[in-house]
Amino acid sequence: MECDVVFTAKEVTAALVLEKNVVVIDVLRATSTMLTALFNGCTAIIPVKEPEEGKKLLEKELLTRGEARENYVLGGERGGVLIPGYDLGNSPLEYTYSAIGQKKLIFCTTNGTLAISKAAQAKNLYLGALLNAGALAATLKKKGDPIIFACAGTRGHYTLEDVLAAGLIMHELKNQTENVALSDKALTSLVLYRYYENDLAKVVNFSKHAKVLTALGFTKDVAYCSQKNLFDLVPAYKQGEIRLGEM
Amino acid sequence: MECDVVFTAKEVTAALVLEKNVVVIDVLRATSTMLTALFNGCTAIIPVKEPEEGKKLLEKELLTRGEARENYVLGGERGGVLIPGYDLGNSPLEYTYSAIGQKKLIFCTTNGTLAISKAAQAKNLYLGALLNAGALAATLKKKGDPIIFACAGTRGHYTLEDVLAAGLIMHELKNQTENVALSDKALTSLVLYRYYENDLAKVVNFSKHAKVLTALGFTKDVAYCSQKNLFDLVPAYKQGEIRLGEM
Repeated sequence: MECDVVFTAKEVTAALVLEKNVVVIDVLRATSTMLTALFNGCTAIIPVKEPEEGKKLLEKELLTRGEARENYVLGGERGGVLIPGYDLGNSPLEYTYSAIGQKKLIFCTTNGTLAISKAAQAKNLYLGALLNAGALAATLKKKGDPIIFACAGTRGHYTLEDVLAAGLIMHELKNQTENVALSDKALTSLVLYRYYENDLAKVVNFSKHAKVLTALGFTKDVAYCSQKNLFDLVPAYKQGEIRLGEM
Repeated sequence: MECDVVFTAKEVTAALVLEKNVVVIDVLRATSTMLTALFNGCTAIIPVKEPEEGKKLLEKELLTRGEARENYVLGGERGGVLIPGYDLGNSPLEYTYSAIGQKKLIFCTTNGTLAISKAAQAKNLYLGALLNAGALAATLKKKGDPIIFACAGTRGHYTLEDVLAAGLIMHELKNQTENVALSDKALTSLVLYRYYENDLAKVVNFSKHAKVLTALGFTKDVAYCSQKNLFDLVPAYKQGEIRLGEM
């Protein structure tokens, strides 16, 4: 199985993802938060790129579907913090069952949802994080190659924790099959994971983005997102929505 | 000392390198070959971007300086092989004392000389490879920060061996001073080196570019360029020429 990695959302193009199985990774915090929401009973996530787009989409959903406002949550961030008029921010710890259970989430983040929208034409599009690496590897093994790990990065810059998660998923995949071929970037990602295998919190904390979040008071989020294989879940994007996919 | 890395020549800009100490790295093979030429008595290297530019420059040098043709070597590659009309290719093993000693080299390669020309406005601009990592670290320690390792890459793509060399140079720098601050990309590079510290040939051979060179028959070049700290030399670029700099 051929594995390649792109380091930032801005490198993702329709041509790149065509006929590929793609995993979008935004460890701090978009994909970790979406995983947590789905684990806690969120029925579906609609990713949007801009805050206003989320608000307009909510109005449209309420009007056309006749649904109650309490069946929806507007969530996401700009600059790491809550968007004015939104219900929840981008902290996974906010997405408890009482906050999101049986509700639909309209979700807007800076890097994660951008990467998803740019990879929307993939053959299969999954969400990955440290939290669900093992489950993802099992799904990827079934789906076959070629596989692209699309690290979201931060505003066009490389982020350590996303590449680390790509490395962990490849490590899990190699545990499940011998038939894995790595590009130069894929090997680098695998090595990053294996070097820090027993100390993921340390390397995640090292990253620039973790330092920004810590300065904003999100220390617990960083620790939470550094956990390995907490969920046996594989969220999949299809026709504008993210739901728990076939495993 | 703040260290950052760029993974490809195309990411190098005048704004990025301004007031910075920059190390251009093209392990396979441009910087390894230039180092070897300088070690074997080459008096200066003039990097050029295009094959025709090299030929015109040679004509001009011969006319304006009244020098003999045998005092110059036209060297470089396109597609990994000798350029028609050139004296030597891009194999370091060609640049023996009898071939290059006391001569000036006009040198044209695909990625390495592109990276040099794009980084020409740096405060100080050095050439790095696995072959001279220790000597470079000593120079960088003296020059101070910020430091940028500009990996040449291959036609805009990430190459493992250049990032490995950036990692080795930072490893040597950290051996010489405790005061080293690494960006996310810099830490990734350092980890790549440390993971393969005792088996550099293995990881260099893994790279896509090494496989291309091996298929072209340059197996010995790949092994040669995988050696660590063979030369105690620091080539520096100044006003269009590369010479052995102050250490």
